[in-house]
Amino acid sequence: MNKNIEQLSAVQKKEMERQYALYANGVSEIIPALELKQKIAKSLLEKKPLKVKLGLDPSAPDVHIGHTVVLQKLKQFQQHGHMIQLIVGDFTGKIGDPTGKSAARKQLTDEEVKHNAQTYVEQFGKVLDMEKVELHYNSRWLSALNFEEVVRLAGSITVARLLERNDFSQRISAGKPISLHEFFYPLMQGYDSVVLESDIELGGTDQHFNVLMGRQLQEHYQKEKQAVILLPLLEGLDGVEKMSKSKGNYIGIQDEPNDMFGKTMSIPDELIAKYIDLATSFDLKKKTQLKIDLKCGKLHPRDAKVMIAENFVTMFHGRKPAEGAVHHFQQVFQHKKLPEEIPAVVWKKASEISVVDLIVELGLLPSKSEARKMIQNGGIKLNGEKVTNISLEIEIKNDTIIQVGKRKFLKLTL
Amino acid sequence: MNKNIEQLSAVQKKEMERQYALYANGVSEIIPALELKQKIAKSLLEKKPLKVKLGLDPSAPDVHIGHTVVLQKLKQFQQHGHMIQLIVGDFTGKIGDPTGKSAARKQLTDEEVKHNAQTYVEQFGKVLDMEKVELHYNSRWLSALNFEEVVRLAGSITVARLLERNDFSQRISAGKPISLHEFFYPLMQGYDSVVLESDIELGGTDQHFNVLMGRQLQEHYQKEKQAVILLPLLEGLDGVEKMSKSKGNYIGIQDEPNDMFGKTMSIPDELIAKYIDLATSFDLKKKTQLKIDLKCGKLHPRDAKVMIAENFVTMFHGRKPAEGAVHHFQQVFQHKKLPEEIPAVVWKKASEISVVDLIVELGLLPSKSEARKMIQNGGIKLNGEKVTNISLEIEIKNDTIIQVGKRKFLKLTL
Repeated sequence: MNKNIEQLSAVQKKEMERQYALYANGVSEIIPALELKQKIAKSLLEKKPLKVKLGLDPSAPDVHIGHTVVLQKLKQFQQHGHMIQLIVGDFTGKIGDPTGKSAARKQLTDEEVKHNAQTYVEQFGKVLDMEKVELHYNSRWLSALNFEEVVRLAGSITVARLLERNDFSQRISAGKPISLHEFFYPLMQGYDSVVLESDIELGGTDQHFNVLMGRQLQEHYQKEKQAVILLPLLEGLDGVEKMSKSKGNYIGIQDEPNDMFGKTMSIPDELIAKYIDLATSFDLKKKTQLKIDLKCGKLHPRDAKVMIAENFVTMFHGRKPAEGAVHHFQQVFQHKKLPEEIPAVVWKKASEISVVDLIVELGLLPSKSEARKMIQNGGIKLNGEKVTNISLEIEIKNDTIIQVGKRKFLKLTL
Repeated sequence: MNKNIEQLSAVQKKEMERQYALYANGVSEIIPALELKQKIAKSLLEKKPLKVKLGLDPSAPDVHIGHTVVLQKLKQFQQHGHMIQLIVGDFTGKIGDPTGKSAARKQLTDEEVKHNAQTYVEQFGKVLDMEKVELHYNSRWLSALNFEEVVRLAGSITVARLLERNDFSQRISAGKPISLHEFFYPLMQGYDSVVLESDIELGGTDQHFNVLMGRQLQEHYQKEKQAVILLPLLEGLDGVEKMSKSKGNYIGIQDEPNDMFGKTMSIPDELIAKYIDLATSFDLKKKTQLKIDLKCGKLHPRDAKVMIAENFVTMFHGRKPAEGAVHHFQQVFQHKKLPEEIPAVVWKKASEISVVDLIVELGLLPSKSEARKMIQNGGIKLNGEKVTNISLEIEIKNDTIIQVGKRKFLKLTL
């Protein structure tokens, strides 16, 4: 394979290095770097697109900004003519947990699988050109394997190697049971690469073991081995944990423009450079410039975040809503003004009420105790005035504006 | 199930205990004893035969006296109307070793599997009534399993439980690799019991883990669990190692009558009682009497061995050949005479030859060095006279008799 690189013309070689630098930007690891270069070289020589694989878990289709790390990377490949292979791992989804012990691994129907896959397609379509994406369901080839073929598949790996996987070794040390069937999940993912003859597989650093399995299995089945690109995990709004829906620290890509913008503005300053690198759709040159400006103080962190937030809203909602969100943000936060459009509700209940009861009645907070806590934290405003007394009783008048936290506004009309 | 026993009449209860005592005689372990009794009770109440399973390795069909341990036990069940299930493990035989590393586990063709199974049938037929035996090939149900069903099967067991198996834990400690597919062999054997709804499985003590797997899987698939009978392993002629073809310490059940008889006479005296118990077809009463007589000196070990040897030859060759073998043995060994019939060969080569060359030419020993060693050990006789000179040259005359070891004779005619 090494001779691919030697055969390149000077122009091609420069192009190969340029693509490589782009794909390598911001990633955690490339295994192995030389093979990725060789694959790019081969693609240039033979004018054949590379097949770039990403596996999807069909049980959790909520896409958030954490996913854009890999989407942006896929987009870079797509922009150079390469083909994206999205694999919906529906085979395991349909099996569920054969021991019945794992609530997390519930059995999905064909319909649920199709629906979840469709959700991915719609949401990914905001970043990727879905015309240049192959969508595969791995049940197509996995459900066709018989026991003999499964034995051959299992013969490609040792028990010791599987026990190296982090979560397995941790459970063994903790004396927690591992059911034998669990050993097959990485093998299934790897076998997908055998069937699809993937050139490259992308995954988060937490997928290290599983994506390398593809290389091992391709070798066992005497195919060309895929190169592997591991991407860093993006921390969420708390700045500590990996962004995920279950942790509540995420920016959903279906969040409303103003919400998406506001959440992005709340990321810790230390994460700005990482968000620029991994999650925005800026080109390499712009990313580099932004990071330099930020570092030498030429770019204020707040302004950097505005640019990131605007980029996100543009990506998932479009140009106009992004401009709107910038404007809204400036109105509410920077100029400490009220937003131009505040949702209004008609108030038909008692005109005299405590602020705490009012907040709960309007559904702005789920309980009185949370309402009281929010008042104590200075998070409640009435007609622009901070409420300080948790027992405050008020008389509702027309156009009373109540504000909870930074972004929730409601206007009461009588 | 316990109520089966309670429902028995006094006569039935006595019969149940009698059968149980018979089946339990000479075995290493019954798991669990109470369940075996319950199964016998149920069979008596419902007048339904029990299904008694034995798994066979299709790659090594050479049957020797070591196998009669389990055959005699099966025969006891058969004599009480129960049904024997012989399972030819052809599924693994046809797969071979998917890693290609194990020479022992070579891939067998359909023809080889059938041929080996036929060998079992013929040889087992000398002990068992093959009319009351079901012969099953496990590829019938195992090759029909798809990946999803295999995942369910694998979900029935934990990795930790599999690692408890002796050879696996030893290999893990020694840092020797275990290929994942090897974990499936015990599962396949266990799944056979699920499909065949076996009541009882027999196996040597070295099969402890595998036969218990049948119980575990039957439970997982919500079937009645089989009871397990573990049988001791019979030591071979060396009195130390398990009888096996590869160790050369075996009495083959296809050995010629005189050879079978002679080999049996060579077992160490300490093993006589064990051979009586496990390998002969004597009834329980006779076995007990023989062991008592032997212990109190009423029966000479040599005479006990004659009875065992006669029993073996009768079992595998018939009454007449057994009598002939006894006679032959008494002629040659006890009366130190030559046997009545000595095979003759016509000698057409040089009439003057060294004894060493003669032995090799006749194919009595494989090499000159072994011939010289045998002379030094006093194992070569010419016309009844021990040869002591390893360089001895002789002239071949008509009716020259050469004897190698205790049992090989050849007469040369000119």
